[in-house]
Amino acid sequence: MTAMLLREDRGAVAHLTLNTPDSLNALSDAMLEAMANELARLHADAQIRVVVLKGAGRCFCAGHDLKEMQAARQAADGGAAAFKDLFDRCADVMQAIVTLPQPVIAQVHGIATAAGCQLVASCDMAVAAEGTRFGVNGVNIGLFCSTPMVALTRNVPAKLAFEMLTTGAFIPAARAAEIGLINRVVPPEALEDETAALADTVAAKLGAAVRTGKRGFYDQMGLPLDRAYAHAGAVMVENMLWRDTDEGIRAFLEKRDPDWKDQG
Amino acid sequence: MTAMLLREDRGAVAHLTLNTPDSLNALSDAMLEAMANELARLHADAQIRVVVLKGAGRCFCAGHDLKEMQAARQAADGGAAAFKDLFDRCADVMQAIVTLPQPVIAQVHGIATAAGCQLVASCDMAVAAEGTRFGVNGVNIGLFCSTPMVALTRNVPAKLAFEMLTTGAFIPAARAAEIGLINRVVPPEALEDETAALADTVAAKLGAAVRTGKRGFYDQMGLPLDRAYAHAGAVMVENMLWRDTDEGIRAFLEKRDPDWKDQG
Amino acid sequence: MTAMLLREDRGAVAHLTLNTPDSLNALSDAMLEAMANELARLHADAQIRVVVLKGAGRCFCAGHDLKEMQAARQAADGGAAAFKDLFDRCADVMQAIVTLPQPVIAQVHGIATAAGCQLVASCDMAVAAEGTRFGVNGVNIGLFCSTPMVALTRNVPAKLAFEMLTTGAFIPAARAAEIGLINRVVPPEALEDETAALADTVAAKLGAAVRTGKRGFYDQMGLPLDRAYAHAGAVMVENMLWRDTDEGIRAFLEKRDPDWKDQG
Repeated sequence: MTAMLLREDRGAVAHLTLNTPDSLNALSDAMLEAMANELARLHADAQIRVVVLKGAGRCFCAGHDLKEMQAARQAADGGAAAFKDLFDRCADVMQAIVTLPQPVIAQVHGIATAAGCQLVASCDMAVAAEGTRFGVNGVNIGLFCSTPMVALTRNVPAKLAFEMLTTGAFIPAARAAEIGLINRVVPPEALEDETAALADTVAAKLGAAVRTGKRGFYDQMGLPLDRAYAHAGAVMVENMLWRDTDEGIRAFLEKRDPDWKDQG
Repeated sequence: MTAMLLREDRGAVAHLTLNTPDSLNALSDAMLEAMANELARLHADAQIRVVVLKGAGRCFCAGHDLKEMQAARQAADGGAAAFKDLFDRCADVMQAIVTLPQPVIAQVHGIATAAGCQLVASCDMAVAAEGTRFGVNGVNIGLFCSTPMVALTRNVPAKLAFEMLTTGAFIPAARAAEIGLINRVVPPEALEDETAALADTVAAKLGAAVRTGKRGFYDQMGLPLDRAYAHAGAVMVENMLWRDTDEGIRAFLEKRDPDWKDQG
Repeated sequence: MTAMLLREDRGAVAHLTLNTPDSLNALSDAMLEAMANELARLHADAQIRVVVLKGAGRCFCAGHDLKEMQAARQAADGGAAAFKDLFDRCADVMQAIVTLPQPVIAQVHGIATAAGCQLVASCDMAVAAEGTRFGVNGVNIGLFCSTPMVALTRNVPAKLAFEMLTTGAFIPAARAAEIGLINRVVPPEALEDETAALADTVAAKLGAAVRTGKRGFYDQMGLPLDRAYAHAGAVMVENMLWRDTDEGIRAFLEKRDPDWKDQG
């Protein structure tokens, strides 16, 4: 982990902070590498139950590092190989969030634009401060937000996603909540606490159940109904056979707190 | 049909009532069997055009029967076979609602939790009383709502479904309506009448058209656009060739009521 | 192009007007043929960047031409071949909107019903006047809106689409906006200007980026996440290598307007 990506663990919640505020936390080559590495570490970290992702300084994230991208044009191929590598690695990071065992919550303020908006859409949940603006505005500079679109269209109704992508317009946080891009909007001064409260709520559940649930959430999403049920049913049988689930149900029936071995 | 599941036909509308209020209308083995049997009878019942599903007592349905599930752990396999059977049969009932020729409307009050929330999501439409709370709260006892998730994520935007599943939090009826889990919220004293009015509206249509439409609705849902159109177009040609559709269009053009052979 | 479909180009925006107000701009055989032909011309028209679709007279479009359809019953096959041809060609027109390189905006007033509502749903974006009513009301005359359903269910949450289809009820414009069927509602006197403003905004972007973006939008929609990213990433590498994108990014970094060869 480099200084451009900070990690602070508070109990079972890891807080990752994009920490290049001078570039509006741009997803540069180095930042993507730091994120990929940290996500790989978190993937293997059984102590961490929830991840919060946020940005240092004035905003969450303004997308790719355009200066760095322009510099890559100096190569003999005009940058083709570098661009392919960049978008591949960016897509890998976005998918690493989806496949991370732990839920990831975006804590968003300022702006979340282009690949920064994609980052919000790729997280499992998102909380934003009033005043935050969201946009997939690459079209304004001639670079359509094709990869951010992948994440956006899996969160937001089609016509509204199309408008954001082709107008490059920003939407306010309240609108982002209405259309499903984020879970909720809170006053700026409450952003840290509200996000932490959501993270703590999830972290207090049986960790194995949350991990199983997150994996199943995405696994069953695109399946036909019968195959989705076959998959989810098998998962649920497994879940029932855990010692901690037995204890959880027993405690519920006895109106007491569960004594979980795997507890937050 | 057993006394745990009541059926009352009012004209062409069958009202099914989950009738084990002491267990909050839990989806026990016996209840699932009663539902499967009654849905099979309704499947073959040409007189019934719409089904309303509701719960007796304080709530709609609180999900599985946890005591019964715990008892199944006494088996030599720790309950594995019983749990598999339970989730399979539950998924079969949920899918029997989807494949039932007649539209099914959930009439919801009190709470609809876990598999009870799945039941609401599995119905074609749902009307809820103000004050009703919805949740997929199995995570609170260590049993992630994996199968309810299948139905929930086919109704509700991804991030909002994820939050419900991993926090186990309840949402009020107004929020359920905002996010697409139900069609609308009405005052408690109007629940019965408003649901009946919706049922009667659908029951008054040409029955064959509604049945054809419901089947096509789910058949085309996951198909690519061109295949969905090929399917729906073939269905619509058939529909045009019915005697009653000829009469329906003729009546419309002549500004009179249709004389349908197949009318509610 | 015939008089039943008017085309007026205003700069890079083509305005298509369904112009058979006496039949509420019904999608007759002739109208569908005119639309297919004009969409084919627009497909090949590099000067046009955005298309606006609207209706002359009291409404946007009331769906198919029922009188014409009834007349087709006189054929030896009872109309089967004619109906197949009609629904095939209608589905072709709807899909020609989706595959048109340019974004298509529906400018909606009065009513948009049955195939007219399908037309709204098939456009990339839609703006409606207050007072507009939307419905897929074929069920009222015994002809379930099976093909309109294909477009509707790709815009609107499942239970709300199901209700519209089986009740035949109309929804007001504000509700259509809430559920994702249209982008927004404006006062009737502002409809023309607001739609034009949206069209002009999109037309002012780099045309190649918008075209690439629209194609990618629908191409990636139904794909699994990894394949969607592979597709979108390849598109984005191409986009980066364009001369105009280089210029667009350069201009942004230099805080000046881009000097695009391909500009609106």
